[in-house]
Amino acid sequence: MRPDNIVYIGRKPTMSYVMAILSAFNNSTSDSVVIKARGRAISTAVDAAEICRNRYLSDLDTPEITIETEQLENEGETRNVSCINITLRKANKQ
Amino acid sequence: MRPDNIVYIGRKPTMSYVMAILSAFNNSTSDSVVIKARGRAISTAVDAAEICRNRYLSDLDTPEITIETEQLENEGETRNVSCINITLRKANKQ
Repeated sequence: MRPDNIVYIGRKPTMSYVMAILSAFNNSTSDSVVIKARGRAISTAVDAAEICRNRYLSDLDTPEITIETEQLENEGETRNVSCINITLRKANKQ
Repeated sequence: MRPDNIVYIGRKPTMSYVMAILSAFNNSTSDSVVIKARGRAISTAVDAAEICRNRYLSDLDTPEITIETEQLENEGETRNVSCINITLRKANKQ
């Protein structure tokens, strides 16, 4: 089962992922959403996170960001691909 | 004066930036190097950081990563561009 607070970034227009992130915040029971992307999609992930932060969700903490390398098997060859995980979390109101 | 521990990522091949990062670590008096990129170059920045971490510099802390939005003026129009700053820091040996 795919957790409902993960948004995987691919080749669609950035705004589709912005909508997906907003909807994940609305529908998930968690107060955080994780944006995951690989390779060329990494810049789209950063764009989507920044648009959410600046335009739609003003009550977020500073995003937590990690990078890592995954090994992909492709036609017998192993390729290293960089990945990014951006966690957007709603700030605790007190 | 440009600080000697900042590497700006552009459109060159990823390995040129890997070399620039390694050379910044060697020549700078600081024990950290900041990798900065905008827009499409963000994925190259993550690639370069990961190649340095995995292949050439084994004694680094987990990188600190921040994202932000810059406004660029272009032919009278203002465009928002996402930026990433990746800080690679040598782990303190004790």
